Amino acid sequence: MDYAKESLKLHYRLRGKLETVPKLPVANKDDLSLAYTPGVAAPCLEIEKDPAKGYELTGRGNTVAVVTDGSAVLGLGDIGPEAGMPVMEGKCVLFKAFGGVDAVPLCIRSHDVDEIVNTVALLAGSFGGVNLEDIAAPRCFEIEKKLKERCDIPIFHDDQHGTAVVVLAALLNALKLTGKKIEEIEVVTSGAGAAGIAIIRLLMAMGLKKVILVDRRGAIYEGREGLNPIKEEMARLTNRERKAGTLAEVLRGADVFIGVSAPGAVTPEMVRSMAPDPILFPMANPTPEIMPGEALAAGAAVVGTGRSDFPNQINNVLAFPGIFRGAFDVRASDINDAMKIAAAHALAGLVSGEELSKDYILPAAFDPRVRDAVASAVAAAARETGVARI
Amino acid sequence: MDYAKESLKLHYRLRGKLETVPKLPVANKDDLSLAYTPGVAAPCLEIEKDPAKGYELTGRGNTVAVVTDGSAVLGLGDIGPEAGMPVMEGKCVLFKAFGGVDAVPLCIRSHDVDEIVNTVALLAGSFGGVNLEDIAAPRCFEIEKKLKERCDIPIFHDDQHGTAVVVLAALLNALKLTGKKIEEIEVVTSGAGAAGIAIIRLLMAMGLKKVILVDRRGAIYEGREGLNPIKEEMARLTNRERKAGTLAEVLRGADVFIGVSAPGAVTPEMVRSMAPDPILFPMANPTPEIMPGEALAAGAAVVGTGRSDFPNQINNVLAFPGIFRGAFDVRASDINDAMKIAAAHALAGLVSGEELSKDYILPAAFDPRVRDAVASAVAAAARETGVARI
Repeated sequence: MDYAKESLKLHYRLRGKLETVPKLPVANKDDLSLAYTPGVAAPCLEIEKDPAKGYELTGRGNTVAVVTDGSAVLGLGDIGPEAGMPVMEGKCVLFKAFGGVDAVPLCIRSHDVDEIVNTVALLAGSFGGVNLEDIAAPRCFEIEKKLKERCDIPIFHDDQHGTAVVVLAALLNALKLTGKKIEEIEVVTSGAGAAGIAIIRLLMAMGLKKVILVDRRGAIYEGREGLNPIKEEMARLTNRERKAGTLAEVLRGADVFIGVSAPGAVTPEMVRSMAPDPILFPMANPTPEIMPGEALAAGAAVVGTGRSDFPNQINNVLAFPGIFRGAFDVRASDINDAMKIAAAHALAGLVSGEELSKDYILPAAFDPRVRDAVASAVAAAARETGVARI
Repeated sequence: MDYAKESLKLHYRLRGKLETVPKLPVANKDDLSLAYTPGVAAPCLEIEKDPAKGYELTGRGNTVAVVTDGSAVLGLGDIGPEAGMPVMEGKCVLFKAFGGVDAVPLCIRSHDVDEIVNTVALLAGSFGGVNLEDIAAPRCFEIEKKLKERCDIPIFHDDQHGTAVVVLAALLNALKLTGKKIEEIEVVTSGAGAAGIAIIRLLMAMGLKKVILVDRRGAIYEGREGLNPIKEEMARLTNRERKAGTLAEVLRGADVFIGVSAPGAVTPEMVRSMAPDPILFPMANPTPEIMPGEALAAGAAVVGTGRSDFPNQINNVLAFPGIFRGAFDVRASDINDAMKIAAAHALAGLVSGEELSKDYILPAAFDPRVRDAVASAVAAAARETGVARI
């Protein structure tokens, strides 16, 4: 199927992929008097007395805002807020279809951190959580950090954390297959944007010690010139031997390659230079850093990509719907590392020991068990870490 | 029925009166590839080339934001943004049920004019229009004015303009019944908030010349001390004889009373002091300025209230769904006076000459003809005044 052509036709036909549908009829005066005035004054007064009642008397607690500034949409770059809306609507469709979460697409006509933060923070009373989407790095880190400080609802940048959760799940199972331990392996990532940095942070929270980030200028090490503040911070936390060099140079001897960069960044020779039984997650879209067939022929033990036409698709849809479902179920005030790690374990756990193979390290996107497994693990972790409010 | 009690039960049961529902299935990989990546890149790129394509490729053009700061919710006053959400959700339900318009409830945690304006303006690319709701006067006037300057989509404060349209429709038919002309009558309004001022402005745009606004301190006249800027402006436009005095004093000899103030403001004696065949629209909710039975007994020719249990309900639901339907149908950039007047004429015209009586000056809220009659009149007026974009 020519997805671009067919999708364009579909979008012209639908004129929007979502609609807002009343949950109650308004067919007569009584209906109107209950849904609206005068009856509606009663729930309003309940919430005035106790704003937390808004979670019980309105849809707020089951509704996520899907927010972009249009600055890093898919692989298309800064195409503007309005042009990001088809992706935001698509994300909202997935939230509802895979998580039972109501979702509202919002685009913000600003690239200014404080304007974006202020806009979202002032709307926080309308929603149970915020999913940031397709906002360029490094701005996305600052926006997320400031929003977490100002808001009493979960703020989740899916390009970072959704990706990180699914990569962690894939890695957990790939390590089982290859008999390696996260505390001992050496990981090299290519691409130090939102996803690359979030993946490394989450893997380090799980115990990873040896890791080198590579960007377009090569390995990132403490003291390298021209690093932005977030890369500087990562340079202090990673690559303690301060290795310099190209991706090919630092990949030698590594156990794991994680790519969120560009097609062709990895060659078969580079795979052969890695440690025995290397694990590769070349996730550049639509063309991976190295094609799975080439990587496997060069000795890779496990390969996962972002694509649905190869085994082991590392697909965010495995994570974000269940994560928000779980967070909303316990009215969580935050989505923290413990909840993300719990989600990754839940995903990895859906592949049983007998089923686990180099072609099956993650459940499929349409596996009906995913939503509840992730949601209940996330809800339990929220309770354990004290961010659940019911 | 005890509306308060039953409505509260209903709200607890529903946990939100709206849901966001996908218009397409996502049951397999192809569905996913069309609604989301990779296919969705195609509509994104179309909109990047021409942002107006967003009206054809997303739901933006059929979606209104229903926005409050919670400062003047129903008759409850400043109960806070979250506490206003049941009303906003109810309004969204009515938008969909009566106008086929998708609607998103948003509350803003600020009472600052510029913060509210900035928040809404930065979100304007997500919506086809904005319905401001339950924002206190005089702040609401400034917010609306600034948003109209900054946004390329209709900004409509329903408490002002929806009310004004339905009052104008009611008055047009009441004048037919009493054989009076809008250019010649004298109108007195009680209540100089958002609705009171908008009503007078629209009636003056229709040709009304003689009008006196009354607030809690009596008649508003040029030079009265302590007027806020909007009342000062109204003082220059109305009451050219600079009459001072109480409502009872200025109501003497008037043809029309319009009340958006408080119960009991008008007595039978005051009705008897008006011109022959007086028209009264005492719209204080839930208890009118004077009960219809009392007004009629004192000689009123026509009485309309805000209540559904008396004849002639002056109900905004007659106006806003069809107004936005019409504006959206022609992708209007504004909702201007011509469009509001067209809506009022369309509403008044639904009551035929034979049907017209003192108990039937407006169509019922559930009259199925209302939506299309209002929408087509509004769309035509938008075209005539150059604000239609298709």
